[in-house]
Amino acid sequence: MTDYVTEAGSRWLSREELDSARDKMPILYVDALPVRVDETGTVTAFGLLLRATGAGEISRALVSGRVLHHERVRGALLRHLEKDLGPLALPKLPAHPQPFTVAEYFPVPGVTPFHDPRQHAVSLAYVVPVEGDCAPQQDALQLTWVSPEEAADAGLQAEMANGQGTLLRQALAVCGF
Amino acid sequence: MTDYVTEAGSRWLSREELDSARDKMPILYVDALPVRVDETGTVTAFGLLLRATGAGEISRALVSGRVLHHERVRGALLRHLEKDLGPLALPKLPAHPQPFTVAEYFPVPGVTPFHDPRQHAVSLAYVVPVEGDCAPQQDALQLTWVSPEEAADAGLQAEMANGQGTLLRQALAVCGF
Amino acid sequence: MTDYVTEAGSRWLSREELDSARDKMPILYVDALPVRVDETGTVTAFGLLLRATGAGEISRALVSGRVLHHERVRGALLRHLEKDLGPLALPKLPAHPQPFTVAEYFPVPGVTPFHDPRQHAVSLAYVVPVEGDCAPQQDALQLTWVSPEEAADAGLQAEMANGQGTLLRQALAVCGF
Amino acid sequence: MTDYVTEAGSRWLSREELDSARDKMPILYVDALPVRVDETGTVTAFGLLLRATGAGEISRALVSGRVLHHERVRGALLRHLEKDLGPLALPKLPAHPQPFTVAEYFPVPGVTPFHDPRQHAVSLAYVVPVEGDCAPQQDALQLTWVSPEEAADAGLQAEMANGQGTLLRQALAVCGF
Repeated sequence: MTDYVTEAGSRWLSREELDSARDKMPILYVDALPVRVDETGTVTAFGLLLRATGAGEISRALVSGRVLHHERVRGALLRHLEKDLGPLALPKLPAHPQPFTVAEYFPVPGVTPFHDPRQHAVSLAYVVPVEGDCAPQQDALQLTWVSPEEAADAGLQAEMANGQGTLLRQALAVCGF
Repeated sequence: MTDYVTEAGSRWLSREELDSARDKMPILYVDALPVRVDETGTVTAFGLLLRATGAGEISRALVSGRVLHHERVRGALLRHLEKDLGPLALPKLPAHPQPFTVAEYFPVPGVTPFHDPRQHAVSLAYVVPVEGDCAPQQDALQLTWVSPEEAADAGLQAEMANGQGTLLRQALAVCGF
Repeated sequence: MTDYVTEAGSRWLSREELDSARDKMPILYVDALPVRVDETGTVTAFGLLLRATGAGEISRALVSGRVLHHERVRGALLRHLEKDLGPLALPKLPAHPQPFTVAEYFPVPGVTPFHDPRQHAVSLAYVVPVEGDCAPQQDALQLTWVSPEEAADAGLQAEMANGQGTLLRQALAVCGF
Repeated sequence: MTDYVTEAGSRWLSREELDSARDKMPILYVDALPVRVDETGTVTAFGLLLRATGAGEISRALVSGRVLHHERVRGALLRHLEKDLGPLALPKLPAHPQPFTVAEYFPVPGVTPFHDPRQHAVSLAYVVPVEGDCAPQQDALQLTWVSPEEAADAGLQAEMANGQGTLLRQALAVCGF
């Protein structure tokens, strides 16, 4: 997969091309919520990133990013998990390609619970158990593991940027909480 | 929804812009398989289009099309169902935004079961009960209702363009056949 | 289906047999949350029953009941919806047999969010759009339609018996709220 | 989990009680299809048991068994996987309680694709990645790993008892094949 993406690299978008595309069509994203599970598969902790936004603010976020041209959705999930959690996180990607939901981020707030001032993004959302050591990378400053009870807290959910608190709440629900 | 899309119309893609985008990023699609159901929700028939392809060939196909800039996924589903089945089809869109699968169409055959020579398209796939009268429109020449047994036929599935026979097979499975 | 169940009727459980079975094995249930949807499938209202409990109390509840011997899950859903909402409710059962979640009711509180003092019940939960007129029947005293915002209210969820507030919350999440 | 089940053991069914219950109500089961996945989560092999049936015949089968009184569905999955695959199989149970389908086994053939001459069983079906060494136990004689292409073979599916070939086909579909 990685090789194929590299080979296709010459067709990736320049900054200008990306800006242009963002004005013209929905951009395909993936969102991943890392979790710790016990031997019965029950989620024991949800992993939330602290991420520096462009404006110098810090907010909680999911692992999130674009799907590239000629990249599989699974490849994009793996790439963004590795980018944010480091190479030793050992994410266990789902065997089913079906996302648990589709989050539609609109540049205009209020159309859906999700909002992205930069673009209209449509994101396939997955819960991903990780078994290894997580070491936040790049603009992900820190990874915090919170219990299902803490994750259900409305205050914590409100701290998350772009309406991702709703996505966390939906992930809790599909995990049985 | 419709008004919002119309208002956003000036930001839709020209043919040149679409061609350019197709060379640069995955294009977001929806696929819908119309079905007839009985009072218990059991599928009694699957609806397949006969569609004229650009090359003057005719093949079986699902209802399928792009999600536009600023358009909800639900809006795109409704628009493409109406475009292909006419305004009296009465499609019953699912209450869950979760697609039954995600079909990744690659320009290169063999990467996935799905193939689209024009572009890398990622499609959210839904089974949609329709209750009204279907009158194929535009490049959809005919709508044929086939029984679950007929839909399971490998020969019929092989007649479908772009690997959509696999999507039909997957839809049969999620409907319990 | 109905005929088949009637034919099998002689094998249904007597009260004593049911009490005995409840002490010995998990009992299979279905839970249904009736919803109103608009033409795009978006849920506009959730339907909650007011139900008289055995102890003479009144609480909010979902449509809920046992799956009988030789009865299809779909048949049980239809039967319980008709029993609680009347014969003109026109429920649109899902084409997919997959429930949105499995609710495990334990006689001991705290094992899961769900609790049933009478028995260990395992329930397949579905969201079911209804299009017709609902007229509560039997021990269902009243049906109230609440908006997604009202349904998300923690106070309202806490009013629901047996932990079904959690099931309402999970249904909201899978419907995109 | 295990302790809780053991504690509840005195309430398990005797052979006579189980036979009686089987004549009176649907019995709750779980079905699990063990799979091997690569680092992107793509299934590379499906695990099928060779199992000796009561009649002295041998047929391919999934991991399958009852949910006990006071047992969590997750606990039942883990117990049956361990029983059939041995204690070192390291199954990765799903974080979502939602099964990929519900298989209804009727004592009368033809009601659904699934058939169990002993009883009316309703089974929650899961695909379960296993990472460790599998050593078939008890009445599971052998575990064979087959490729997705082999698993899709109609002849192989027809070899499976009780209509479980249909369940294998449905699992292939939800895994993207």
